[in-house]
Amino acid sequence: MARRLELHPDRLFPSDPSARSVARALYAEVADLPIVSPHGHTDPIWFAENENWTDATSLLLAPDHYIYRMLYSQGVDLDALAIPRKSGVPATDPRAAWKLFASHYTLFRGTPSRLWLDHVFGEVFGIDVALEAATADLYFDTINEKLASEAFRPRALFDRFKIDFLATTEGPQHDLAPHHAIHASGWGGRVVTTYRPDAVIDVENEGFANAMERFAGWTGEDVYSWKGYLAAHAKRRADFRAAGATATDHGHPTALTANLSPAEAEALFLKVTGGDWTPADAELFRAQMLTEMAAMSAEDGMVMQIHPGAFRNHNAGLFATHGRDKGADIPTRTDYVHALKPLLDRFGTSTDLSVILFTLDESVYARELAPLAGHYPCLKLGPSWWFHDSPEGMRRFREMTTETAGFYNTVGFNDDTRAFLSIPARHDVARRVDCAFLARLVAEHRIEDWEAAELAQELTSGLVRRAYRIDEPFTAAKAA
Amino acid sequence: MARRLELHPDRLFPSDPSARSVARALYAEVADLPIVSPHGHTDPIWFAENENWTDATSLLLAPDHYIYRMLYSQGVDLDALAIPRKSGVPATDPRAAWKLFASHYTLFRGTPSRLWLDHVFGEVFGIDVALEAATADLYFDTINEKLASEAFRPRALFDRFKIDFLATTEGPQHDLAPHHAIHASGWGGRVVTTYRPDAVIDVENEGFANAMERFAGWTGEDVYSWKGYLAAHAKRRADFRAAGATATDHGHPTALTANLSPAEAEALFLKVTGGDWTPADAELFRAQMLTEMAAMSAEDGMVMQIHPGAFRNHNAGLFATHGRDKGADIPTRTDYVHALKPLLDRFGTSTDLSVILFTLDESVYARELAPLAGHYPCLKLGPSWWFHDSPEGMRRFREMTTETAGFYNTVGFNDDTRAFLSIPARHDVARRVDCAFLARLVAEHRIEDWEAAELAQELTSGLVRRAYRIDEPFTAAKAA
Amino acid sequence: MARRLELHPDRLFPSDPSARSVARALYAEVADLPIVSPHGHTDPIWFAENENWTDATSLLLAPDHYIYRMLYSQGVDLDALAIPRKSGVPATDPRAAWKLFASHYTLFRGTPSRLWLDHVFGEVFGIDVALEAATADLYFDTINEKLASEAFRPRALFDRFKIDFLATTEGPQHDLAPHHAIHASGWGGRVVTTYRPDAVIDVENEGFANAMERFAGWTGEDVYSWKGYLAAHAKRRADFRAAGATATDHGHPTALTANLSPAEAEALFLKVTGGDWTPADAELFRAQMLTEMAAMSAEDGMVMQIHPGAFRNHNAGLFATHGRDKGADIPTRTDYVHALKPLLDRFGTSTDLSVILFTLDESVYARELAPLAGHYPCLKLGPSWWFHDSPEGMRRFREMTTETAGFYNTVGFNDDTRAFLSIPARHDVARRVDCAFLARLVAEHRIEDWEAAELAQELTSGLVRRAYRIDEPFTAAKAA
Repeated sequence: MARRLELHPDRLFPSDPSARSVARALYAEVADLPIVSPHGHTDPIWFAENENWTDATSLLLAPDHYIYRMLYSQGVDLDALAIPRKSGVPATDPRAAWKLFASHYTLFRGTPSRLWLDHVFGEVFGIDVALEAATADLYFDTINEKLASEAFRPRALFDRFKIDFLATTEGPQHDLAPHHAIHASGWGGRVVTTYRPDAVIDVENEGFANAMERFAGWTGEDVYSWKGYLAAHAKRRADFRAAGATATDHGHPTALTANLSPAEAEALFLKVTGGDWTPADAELFRAQMLTEMAAMSAEDGMVMQIHPGAFRNHNAGLFATHGRDKGADIPTRTDYVHALKPLLDRFGTSTDLSVILFTLDESVYARELAPLAGHYPCLKLGPSWWFHDSPEGMRRFREMTTETAGFYNTVGFNDDTRAFLSIPARHDVARRVDCAFLARLVAEHRIEDWEAAELAQELTSGLVRRAYRIDEPFTAAKAA
Repeated sequence: MARRLELHPDRLFPSDPSARSVARALYAEVADLPIVSPHGHTDPIWFAENENWTDATSLLLAPDHYIYRMLYSQGVDLDALAIPRKSGVPATDPRAAWKLFASHYTLFRGTPSRLWLDHVFGEVFGIDVALEAATADLYFDTINEKLASEAFRPRALFDRFKIDFLATTEGPQHDLAPHHAIHASGWGGRVVTTYRPDAVIDVENEGFANAMERFAGWTGEDVYSWKGYLAAHAKRRADFRAAGATATDHGHPTALTANLSPAEAEALFLKVTGGDWTPADAELFRAQMLTEMAAMSAEDGMVMQIHPGAFRNHNAGLFATHGRDKGADIPTRTDYVHALKPLLDRFGTSTDLSVILFTLDESVYARELAPLAGHYPCLKLGPSWWFHDSPEGMRRFREMTTETAGFYNTVGFNDDTRAFLSIPARHDVARRVDCAFLARLVAEHRIEDWEAAELAQELTSGLVRRAYRIDEPFTAAKAA
Repeated sequence: MARRLELHPDRLFPSDPSARSVARALYAEVADLPIVSPHGHTDPIWFAENENWTDATSLLLAPDHYIYRMLYSQGVDLDALAIPRKSGVPATDPRAAWKLFASHYTLFRGTPSRLWLDHVFGEVFGIDVALEAATADLYFDTINEKLASEAFRPRALFDRFKIDFLATTEGPQHDLAPHHAIHASGWGGRVVTTYRPDAVIDVENEGFANAMERFAGWTGEDVYSWKGYLAAHAKRRADFRAAGATATDHGHPTALTANLSPAEAEALFLKVTGGDWTPADAELFRAQMLTEMAAMSAEDGMVMQIHPGAFRNHNAGLFATHGRDKGADIPTRTDYVHALKPLLDRFGTSTDLSVILFTLDESVYARELAPLAGHYPCLKLGPSWWFHDSPEGMRRFREMTTETAGFYNTVGFNDDTRAFLSIPARHDVARRVDCAFLARLVAEHRIEDWEAAELAQELTSGLVRRAYRIDEPFTAAKAA
């Protein structure tokens, strides 16, 4: 007989009874608050077209690099999991791929993927037995059947999940058609874009030339001149702003910024777009562009997110066969103190600019990020990110940032996911872990219980709404 | 009605009942022990002149960069807080500044500043309502009234706080007049100085030339010759020793040391004092001077403290308007293993020299500092410092150093503060956190309860007295 | 009256009652499982000759750098502890040395050495009073008397400790005679060697020339030609394999790997063996040899262990008088992401090669090692190592690696010790800490109790047997 799947109501709370009872009380007040998702990677086409998804494997398994990186690490063949190659999707039976995943589900014990997936299976699909080889068919059939129903269309789930705000991420080369379609449809869901210009900034990206061409196309600017290039950014930022964007995003290998003179910047631009550049030139250009983007943000009010520190496509063999975003990105040691100084020398004392800093290097939480955010008016700390977006990772984030930056220089939770069905699971984990942390402070008499209750609301709702300025351009009445 | 301010007797203890009861018992035995403060930044003039302080804002708010860095980070204007500019103290009403602070007091939730301040308000001033906008006037009036009383003069508080030893920090350019005055006054409080020669060692400091001039003045040496310069250090060290100093202190950007030949050292000295030097020269000179100071310490017995790793005055805009020490110092990644080798190649096997190492980079606790201090006879570990002088920071310090360095290569607590009224609060937090850590070891049966009781005494009293040699030059009878 | 020595049955378990009861139940199922020790430094001669050890000092104190580094750090003279100098063993009375150690036993409070030693004293020798100056004689006499008995001969203890597999570590210059003797003796204990070629790879090691000579001698190859050198490695690997080795081990200063062309590799080899090389050449040669060893491992199936990051012989004075391995090795910051890429560019997608990564730099657990091992099929994570082989260190290892790498990309426990009598103690600590970690996950409802029970078995037995392939070459029937 199959094991039962049960989501324990006290999961992720401290086991000590006094702290647990505080955590329960705090969580009860925030568990059902609407979801604000200011940064993520869902596909806006889902909400534009509102078509049913087809099957468990193509929706839940094949796009989720958290899942298949773990399977791959244990020798499971990616073709057998139906993971797309550069040459196309392998002709793998989706049911067979799902069974292969199910038969390795024990690998996920102790990982956040397991917590998220069980929540999706139990809460979203109502399945009450645990996933294993023996239940793989039941899962596959149940999920597929539900996915085909009205109740599981994207907009229906958006409403069921009580999502109040959902940001996707697009580049300047993108037409934003799905966002325009969503807007034109009259549907009430607030799905907005985010301006992520990496593809036209990172000359080391193999898609740079192509992205620049489309960048020129959408803007009508001479993007191969420095002046035209900056003007094109300004135009596209305005387009994105019109499509609801409140933020930009920058995913650079490092946090390096630069503050070159206009003449130096122009010369560098011509060098890197001219094709005769070194990796150091490419890095310096990315650095300069962070400062240029900050200058534009100080003008147009878009909040700037910096996500540095990933060594992309580390596995050369896999990159050759499967391309980007296949679970082979590895964090690297990241400096912020020296790297950000050029940008801060220009905007450090500004209260107009708002920059949200992320990291994949936890050693900087207490040493660099909390001291920076606890001083500079323009800096705030994004939540624990990617590999650290997990119970232990979130706990370390709070333990290592709160004492120097406080709670109020943080910005709530980001689910940062393309796995739409897992969004409630991820926010639930974050709320539980935050309540557990606050409960410990209360149980150790470091803050009062009523303060923790206020903070739980702030960490769930207030901070994210203010940090991402999501109530500013539309209606202040939506503010919590 | 205002919220009550209560300091819970079990604050900072583990919430688990078995560990908590051990923590209570340990704490009960050390809570009232006299305070030994071997490193800090109080103003000796207070104890020399014994004048009343004037008001809450100028005593508690304006000098405390822990407080105003947090307020500034949230966009509060420093002028409105009465924080001094280079051009002078802004003409801000102290009461208005205090109210502004009070109305932002929620920002400090979860920070050590909140713990310290509440202790000062509740224990030192006897206030029993919480600070908020509504109670700001009550606070301001109560504090000012008490500050005007006999019982709140510096020496009276020194006695009330049961301070047994208090070290201030002065440079070689300082006349030590307050210390001489204290000594001459016949008052029994033991307030001593500490030799911190940074101002005549760091040629990158804008005050270097001025400090050198005064250094020459106090010593009568030709401080612009290498021989005279070293002789001047020796003279001033003797002056400081005579004024009670048992230690030196060195606040360098890095922990780099060097061991140049005398000829190389002299050439470098002439270069950096001649004005034609690079940042690398300045760094190498600081490095060499750490080794020179170690050599003098091995002679005169002064314990050497090294506080490396702060990137000073990171905010260029703020530095231009407000100058140094305005909450804009940010920790940096710091190497010790390679940096200290030149000094250790000379003194590593010495049992005469004693060097106390501090860090702002917690990633070195387990990796570098504990292994170094757990091996070299001349090295000991200073307590968690500055941004890490907090409940979580102290806990991490113990968790990451004890297993390799043990307790006995650590040196007790430093309050390291200029906020005199917070000294009891800071020592109380440290004692509680240490007792909580020991209680966990007992509750997990890793040490016996009687061992924990001995250790609590050592961490509070024995280790600091021995490490700073505070009983050696005066009377052994004062030893615990 | 002397204090009693008692090993509490709940030691190292969480103090919270609900988590503790889970930990107890988990531990009960693994406490008595046989010991698998796939990596360590015991002397195979002990098992070959099966002679009695002579006394407490020469067996337990003098060879254990964990112990005497702590004593030395507190100013205890190494001669007085009978620690061998390069010039020979000092003429110290072993009983006096033991007493000196006993009188400083408080230094070890809170350290793993204390946990291991108390286990050895209490469990192995049956002593029931605590070690202190007053009991030093009793200890010395009791231990020596038992050591002289039949029951305390190496093979008898091997059986009593229920050791199922014990790997020692030898270099290519070693004759493996003790291993051949063990095999020839017909004794049933499985003691195997491990191929650690550092001595013929690290040209900076003062013993390089001598090791090369013996390397040539055992293989009959021209080890001074690149081709002969590689052939000699292949021969000796086959010898070690025949002597039971299932793994190689590489203790380099860094994790750097290289992937030079054959011509470049040959030129580099000739340069570094020719004597005219820089430290950078030596480093590059070690880097290239890691890749060469990986290539051979992909052929002969030996699991490759990389133990990087120790700054060896940091104390110049001590190295001059006492030589290597005297407690003066200090961890350094270690990069893996860039360092391993050349090797991974060649073997990253291989499922034949298996590389186990260790670190002395805990900041890489969550940032680099867990992401690497959670992706690459050829990589697994060794347990917390050396300074981090301790309750807090093991806890941090699990907390910082599990969420990204899972449990199944780890390889169980290594005792990594030359202190044979402490092997049961070390495995017991590891089992307790793992059960405590699993118990927390259960108590926080992050995994089910039956999953924790399966994992406890895996962490104790299954993972190590599979990772080190210890059941493959002999008999599959031994697999758990």
